[in-house]
Amino acid sequence: MTAGISIAEYLFRRLREAGLNAVHGVPGDYNLRLLDYVIPSGLEWVGNCNELNAGYATDGYARIKGIGAIVTTFGVGELSAINAIAGAYAEMAPVVHIVGTPNRSDQQNGVKLHHSFCRGQPGDYRIFAEMYEKVTVAQENITDVGTAAAQIDRVIRECLVQSRPVYVQVPMDMVDAIIPGTPLARVLDLSPALGDTTLEREVCDIILDRMKTSSKRFILVDVGTSRYGLSAQTDQLIKATGFPTATTPFGKGIVDETLPNFHGIHGTVGPHIFTSYVDSCDLIMNIGPAHSNVNTYYFATVPKPEVTITIERDTIHMGDRTWSVSPQRILRRVLETLEEDPLPKAVSYPDLPNLHQILQSLPPVNPTSKLTQDTFWYRMSSFFREGDIILTETGTASNGSRDFVLPKNTTLINSGIWLSIGYMLAATQGAALAQRHLSQSDNPLSKGRTILFEGDGSFQMTAQELSTIIRQKLDVIIFIINNNGYTIERLIHGPQESYNDVASWRFLEAPSFFGAEMADPSYPVYTARATTWGELGGVLARDEMRGGKGLRMVELMMDVMDSNDTLRLMLELWKSKKAE
Amino acid sequence: MTAGISIAEYLFRRLREAGLNAVHGVPGDYNLRLLDYVIPSGLEWVGNCNELNAGYATDGYARIKGIGAIVTTFGVGELSAINAIAGAYAEMAPVVHIVGTPNRSDQQNGVKLHHSFCRGQPGDYRIFAEMYEKVTVAQENITDVGTAAAQIDRVIRECLVQSRPVYVQVPMDMVDAIIPGTPLARVLDLSPALGDTTLEREVCDIILDRMKTSSKRFILVDVGTSRYGLSAQTDQLIKATGFPTATTPFGKGIVDETLPNFHGIHGTVGPHIFTSYVDSCDLIMNIGPAHSNVNTYYFATVPKPEVTITIERDTIHMGDRTWSVSPQRILRRVLETLEEDPLPKAVSYPDLPNLHQILQSLPPVNPTSKLTQDTFWYRMSSFFREGDIILTETGTASNGSRDFVLPKNTTLINSGIWLSIGYMLAATQGAALAQRHLSQSDNPLSKGRTILFEGDGSFQMTAQELSTIIRQKLDVIIFIINNNGYTIERLIHGPQESYNDVASWRFLEAPSFFGAEMADPSYPVYTARATTWGELGGVLARDEMRGGKGLRMVELMMDVMDSNDTLRLMLELWKSKKAE
Repeated sequence: MTAGISIAEYLFRRLREAGLNAVHGVPGDYNLRLLDYVIPSGLEWVGNCNELNAGYATDGYARIKGIGAIVTTFGVGELSAINAIAGAYAEMAPVVHIVGTPNRSDQQNGVKLHHSFCRGQPGDYRIFAEMYEKVTVAQENITDVGTAAAQIDRVIRECLVQSRPVYVQVPMDMVDAIIPGTPLARVLDLSPALGDTTLEREVCDIILDRMKTSSKRFILVDVGTSRYGLSAQTDQLIKATGFPTATTPFGKGIVDETLPNFHGIHGTVGPHIFTSYVDSCDLIMNIGPAHSNVNTYYFATVPKPEVTITIERDTIHMGDRTWSVSPQRILRRVLETLEEDPLPKAVSYPDLPNLHQILQSLPPVNPTSKLTQDTFWYRMSSFFREGDIILTETGTASNGSRDFVLPKNTTLINSGIWLSIGYMLAATQGAALAQRHLSQSDNPLSKGRTILFEGDGSFQMTAQELSTIIRQKLDVIIFIINNNGYTIERLIHGPQESYNDVASWRFLEAPSFFGAEMADPSYPVYTARATTWGELGGVLARDEMRGGKGLRMVELMMDVMDSNDTLRLMLELWKSKKAE
Repeated sequence: MTAGISIAEYLFRRLREAGLNAVHGVPGDYNLRLLDYVIPSGLEWVGNCNELNAGYATDGYARIKGIGAIVTTFGVGELSAINAIAGAYAEMAPVVHIVGTPNRSDQQNGVKLHHSFCRGQPGDYRIFAEMYEKVTVAQENITDVGTAAAQIDRVIRECLVQSRPVYVQVPMDMVDAIIPGTPLARVLDLSPALGDTTLEREVCDIILDRMKTSSKRFILVDVGTSRYGLSAQTDQLIKATGFPTATTPFGKGIVDETLPNFHGIHGTVGPHIFTSYVDSCDLIMNIGPAHSNVNTYYFATVPKPEVTITIERDTIHMGDRTWSVSPQRILRRVLETLEEDPLPKAVSYPDLPNLHQILQSLPPVNPTSKLTQDTFWYRMSSFFREGDIILTETGTASNGSRDFVLPKNTTLINSGIWLSIGYMLAATQGAALAQRHLSQSDNPLSKGRTILFEGDGSFQMTAQELSTIIRQKLDVIIFIINNNGYTIERLIHGPQESYNDVASWRFLEAPSFFGAEMADPSYPVYTARATTWGELGGVLARDEMRGGKGLRMVELMMDVMDSNDTLRLMLELWKSKKAE
């Protein structure tokens, strides 16, 4: 273990130790030597079609696997990916962005190399790193063998602990440089600092007291719940307390939706506005909030601070009090106490709307009627099963997903802050690969499928990543909602304007164009189009769709202005807010 | 003219006045109101598939039309485009990037809107503008009706004068705000400041004296020649002096290659190294230099400063002297003087290599032999004609273009600094549209075709922009070099490594997949594949290829490690430089 090791191998071995199995990216002049170390370090290499897509794919991989890594080349490559990294920053995905840069001496001397601005100015080689300081939580430039290992350890630790992207530059002449391998003998220390036990007991007591003395309670689960590693504890909390529970749109899929006290999305559950009950609550436990406009029905569902216990990554807030404590340790203590001393069951809750009931009360479809989004998303729920990873692209799909009734142990990937369309197809590639990499584990997601819902306009943004899905023989089901353009934009402004149109593609020719062998039993391809409920039912009933392996792609013909009720409601709230 | 006008209309009318006929971009939540003004302002709207591609297309449009404009949305849109804008900065393309941003009050109050980081921090709405300060030469945020017109005028002027990108933010609530239309009565003043006539005469005399007293002279034309508006004068200078002339790779296509004293690329002309003559010169006129590594055979062809007159945008250098003068005014004076008092014709030049002679001495092809890049690029020269816009993507195509022998009044678009692969297909969309917009003018480019040469890996980066070409019914000829991956990277490092492979697409299915009507007489589609010289000859002889309208796409099957000699030579120089 004391033998020397190259910097590149050290980096990739640390990433593997952190749970990584594949590196995404695009080769480029300044990163080729780095790429030489990927496969020998026990990692797969996934060459995406371009760097933005590689960034999206890495983010999707990271949301399932807990870490992702992308390699790009200096300048052109890293700038192409920066929107994806900014999205990972906004939405808390743990992504390590590794950039291969020119030799140190060329940088120091301002040599006019391609992929730079060639101005011969000092600092020209720092421009893009300065941009990345704005979209990552830690940055390192590996220029010194003496500090390389500590620098690498630091960025990976920050990536994992903060669940946000980090940035590492490796000059070409540092890739092969030998450093001591000794630090690898110790695994990276990711544990939170030891807490102040007295303070923890105090905070725990306050929370338990509020639980006992309040009468109308509510748990609101948001995206940070998964990002801060609180998902399992939150599930337990929902069970142990019996408090009515909902998620935000961005928090959907994090907790068990089959629990009897789970109701749906805070804001709307089907046609019902859910806020009247919550407005009357005297205790709201808001876990991992992200109060963006689209995640809160334009701030209508932000809980009142005076009755809310807010659980963040490193802090807990109540009213105007803030404690710096580990939420994991506090929740553990709360759950242990509740196990010994359960809450009285006396409280009865009003008859709140419930997604399951809405789903069960839907009338049967008319097989010859055209598909409509008013009930499409509810009805798709019966297609899902445990272990599925479901991705819904920003637009009608993401808003539609609010109506899903999800089985246990499923994961939903949507976007609640960044909303960069095109993300979801590439993220599907990353998520499907991550799911494959879980196959040896007892993670329940290893047993399911990867299922994408995406509109035509979004698909066109990053369509070529379907070829990476094919090349990697990833098992995915893709529903393309063909509604002839950017429907969500039409609903916001310009319903008839040509700028909201997109080109008419022959979507179902995609597998052939992108290189799938159409008669390869090891990677079967199935395509279908559905315009009516009957056609959709026929497609969903097929073995290829329910359980089969390979690529399955279904084009759903939808009306140009169709969406579900929740999207229309949100946009009304937005417009009324703007009109104020 | 004194009637009020909305800020958006003011902006678009100024752009139209500057020569713009089309705005590229992608709709997004914060720019929809802006887009309402595009068509009413007399401009076309081109909705690209994503923002990076829109940026590339705008750059391609600007290189032909003299100005381009792109509209994106705050955050996700502008960041996706930033690599394209950085490329426009590096390579001096006059692009106006307009970003639709949230309402001023939302920005000031740090409201947690989607497409931002939702941290509620002051300054969150300036993050991306700060990034853009690094890749544009002027920036304005239109927040005040009192200064809006002057701000718009300033950025457009800087864009045109500096021939580099600029950045304008328009908050949603400013789009419709009314400002006085009076400034539109005066056209934008783009003229350089009046020169110091005494200084100009002095510099002119020095240049003429050096021309007369030197004996071995050389004109080296580089990219700045076109960017600084010196192309026509440089053509005249080459004719008036008879000095042996070459271009850099990036400067190729700017001057008339049919002149008898034009020789080819400085560095290599066919198998000949061209530097020995230039090394012996006592006068080198270097016009608009860009001394990047790839434009100078890794700095081997940078002229010796002590014998060089260097013409930049605002300055002329000779030895260690620098004069701040207008090159246009100096060249005009030099040319006028030479017309009255020509140089003595006494000097005879050595028998320098000449592209035309090499082309004429090529042996006939064997029709059954496979295509090879050693002579492919020379031989394509006979396909070109006056007015053609020829685009060659970074990689074997861009290096191959060094062997082209171009007819008069053609333009070559390649990349000599930024080298971001994927650029060229989207730039082809922009260039073809610009060519259409020249059709009413006497610009000779209006009579030709738009022809792209691109590798398979590059095509995959931005492939969806072919659908924009189809949707706009643009006339283009595309040669896809299918050599199974990133051949230029293989030549640099890792020839056998899987990271240099790309997916195998069925490229000729692209027109159908991307929505072309295969039997539409108003936009005919022609596809073909060629593996041998005979097949290529047959394809090139067809009417569809030579003169027809529509989309023509030819897949050229080339060997995985094949390139022309000049690329191999350049890479040898690079590797020897790195080994020093």
